[in-house]
Amino acid sequence: MSKKEIDISVPSGFRDYLPEDMIPRQWMLDTIRGVFEKFGFQPLDTSGIEREEVLTGGDPDFDKQIFRSYTKDRPYGLALRFDLTVPLARVVSLYPGDIQKPFKRYQMGKVWRGEKPQAGRFCEFMQFDADIIGSSRLTSDAEIVSVIYETMTALGVGKFLIRVNNRKILNGLANFAGYDRSKSENVMRVLDKLDKLDWTAVSKELAESVGLTQDQIERLKTFIDSQSDNQLDTVARIEELMVDSPDAKEGIQELKRLVYLVDALGVPRDFWSIDLSVARGLGYYTGIVFETVLPDLLSIGSVFSGGRYDNLVQSLGGEQIPATGASVGVDRLFAALSQLRLLPEKKTQTEVVVLNFDPDAEIYNSQVATTLRQNGFCTELYLGREQTIKGQLTYALKQGVPVVVISGGNERGRNVVQVKDLRSRTQVEVPVSKVVEAVRDFL
Amino acid sequence: MSKKEIDISVPSGFRDYLPEDMIPRQWMLDTIRGVFEKFGFQPLDTSGIEREEVLTGGDPDFDKQIFRSYTKDRPYGLALRFDLTVPLARVVSLYPGDIQKPFKRYQMGKVWRGEKPQAGRFCEFMQFDADIIGSSRLTSDAEIVSVIYETMTALGVGKFLIRVNNRKILNGLANFAGYDRSKSENVMRVLDKLDKLDWTAVSKELAESVGLTQDQIERLKTFIDSQSDNQLDTVARIEELMVDSPDAKEGIQELKRLVYLVDALGVPRDFWSIDLSVARGLGYYTGIVFETVLPDLLSIGSVFSGGRYDNLVQSLGGEQIPATGASVGVDRLFAALSQLRLLPEKKTQTEVVVLNFDPDAEIYNSQVATTLRQNGFCTELYLGREQTIKGQLTYALKQGVPVVVISGGNERGRNVVQVKDLRSRTQVEVPVSKVVEAVRDFL
Repeated sequence: MSKKEIDISVPSGFRDYLPEDMIPRQWMLDTIRGVFEKFGFQPLDTSGIEREEVLTGGDPDFDKQIFRSYTKDRPYGLALRFDLTVPLARVVSLYPGDIQKPFKRYQMGKVWRGEKPQAGRFCEFMQFDADIIGSSRLTSDAEIVSVIYETMTALGVGKFLIRVNNRKILNGLANFAGYDRSKSENVMRVLDKLDKLDWTAVSKELAESVGLTQDQIERLKTFIDSQSDNQLDTVARIEELMVDSPDAKEGIQELKRLVYLVDALGVPRDFWSIDLSVARGLGYYTGIVFETVLPDLLSIGSVFSGGRYDNLVQSLGGEQIPATGASVGVDRLFAALSQLRLLPEKKTQTEVVVLNFDPDAEIYNSQVATTLRQNGFCTELYLGREQTIKGQLTYALKQGVPVVVISGGNERGRNVVQVKDLRSRTQVEVPVSKVVEAVRDFL
Repeated sequence: MSKKEIDISVPSGFRDYLPEDMIPRQWMLDTIRGVFEKFGFQPLDTSGIEREEVLTGGDPDFDKQIFRSYTKDRPYGLALRFDLTVPLARVVSLYPGDIQKPFKRYQMGKVWRGEKPQAGRFCEFMQFDADIIGSSRLTSDAEIVSVIYETMTALGVGKFLIRVNNRKILNGLANFAGYDRSKSENVMRVLDKLDKLDWTAVSKELAESVGLTQDQIERLKTFIDSQSDNQLDTVARIEELMVDSPDAKEGIQELKRLVYLVDALGVPRDFWSIDLSVARGLGYYTGIVFETVLPDLLSIGSVFSGGRYDNLVQSLGGEQIPATGASVGVDRLFAALSQLRLLPEKKTQTEVVVLNFDPDAEIYNSQVATTLRQNGFCTELYLGREQTIKGQLTYALKQGVPVVVISGGNERGRNVVQVKDLRSRTQVEVPVSKVVEAVRDFL
């Protein structure tokens, strides 16, 4: 293949982030990290490549949407992680002596899934997770609700709703509605669609693809209808309704206590609800589950979701360790913040461009740039092809940099610089020893 | 395979970073990022998976140390990036309209190489690069020297040396020493070992494996011996020596001008040297090259290196675009900072643990934790299994958290809290409304 024929496009399902996207993206990630650290979560990083058996749980029929990786010397057995939860469970099992429990950790990183590329679906994306390992206390679940609330608030999102449910109640539904427990997973999967489909569509699917009777579907409807905007009302109604279901009973008591804990952790009741249709797809959840939606952008789905998963660590061959946590859908959240115009609209972090149009003043301008940097200003010394003041000013304007310093041999000879604010178009001449003050005045 | 048999170790050549390592590591990465931004470098992120042909340059015989990746649906053509320079060259060619030049970008990210795992060699590691694309000015190379100096200084490294050379001079060596230019790459590769081997060993290798005559080797020795601690002396000597070599002449003029530019950019002459043996392994360098060593840890090799590569973008089918840049060896640098005891010795970022031993005070303690968080303190509400004050205090001590808040039902009843400094063992009782002030006094 000749070099001219190389296809330099990014492969379908993959993406690049140019600075214009990266600057607000980094602001978002830094903000999330700040909130997580305020809650006492500690950073973790794990290998991007895992043993395939760790990812598949040793199941040879495991979901094929995994990226396997190999070199000529190591042809088998390695694959790219598809989430950050399985690696966390592995780490907890692998280093029991180094990890004190409860282990509150956060991790940010890329994960890979062999999805069919389509609009909004990518094969490589970033996750940002916060989990509490080794705590069975309900307060841990309440803390996750609180960390979601504080994160969304720190990002400036004014309207969002954290929908909370308990898998134990959903497990009790079989008993309550009178269908076989083997159908539970399928029933949950269908009920979970209630944020997108109406009851007619859902009940049709419950009958046709799950095989429930009309009577059973009616019971489910009564259950779903118990929901109200008031968390304690919802709890009271399902408590009465499901009095004969022991599984559900425990779940209902947890939800009731959760209301007071979430209050104590400073989350206003308007920002969360008990939503009896929320199931979260993943099979490993065992208790409280949550997801976060933006009422103005419902179609985007949940941007921050998770739940309690008390059996996952054990399934990797470790001991039984309770766990709860949530994951930010970084790309979804970024898309949402962008649509809501909540991202800082900075094309650059650079505050000053020192023009550099006169070879006789290049040393002089280098010194000026260094002085500004040493005083904390993000400073670019112009290094491109444009030879004229005008061409270099155009560059600074296009970059969105607010201030420029303009000096040629003339200024150098007199030991002065011109400092110009590109927004107000004000320009001052100051002694070079005063350049820091002059730039500071404009910023 | 039964679940009990899953091998949960991290694959050989790969690593996890627990919080104890991640906290100083993040401090290091944040510091580097801060310096890069001060120089006007902008963030970029690119896909971890690339088209294989982009990585290999379409060469079917390309180095086999590449991790290919596939799913059942996409069996061929994808591979993991092995550095951040090739993706940068791709991005510059792919989005010419979106990228204004000069393009100063930084990028931090994992890269993968199928190295044979051995001590200190890993298959997955992090790089942190700063490059200037689209500038042929020598000032750009000087800026890279300056960004290396400022980075090392910001990290608190007191002793380091940036070794600088010019590939153009090395290219002129063939002419000067009288060997065929086809031997140039091999000669450079051997001379590059002078930081590890003495002249006897190097001259032996030049004779035996490169096939130079004794006369040619003598000429090389004269060249290497021209080097002095004083940058301008070195330049003057090789200028005289290589007067008949046009390639070298251009390179020497560049080095001479570089001395004054690097001065202007605030780099003291003690922190860099002209080192005529530096070649840098990569074939794509075309001009100034640099590497950074720590005199107290020479064996660790270069921690921050790079050079000018004016032809790389073109080799990917783009136009000819000049470029220069350098890459931090993140893991090497981290190991060096660790050995030099320059890393912050914090096991945790958490400042306060709110004990949580009395179920009757759990709501009360949740409120206290929330107040502390809202006032900016990194606060952990104790969520583990220990039920006693003593057990929870031991946890806080082991974590290295300086302050704890201790409240049970008794304190709740009187609306007070106990605040204790675990270092001085001082404890005060304050009204709950004064908890923020009390914690602040101890921190």
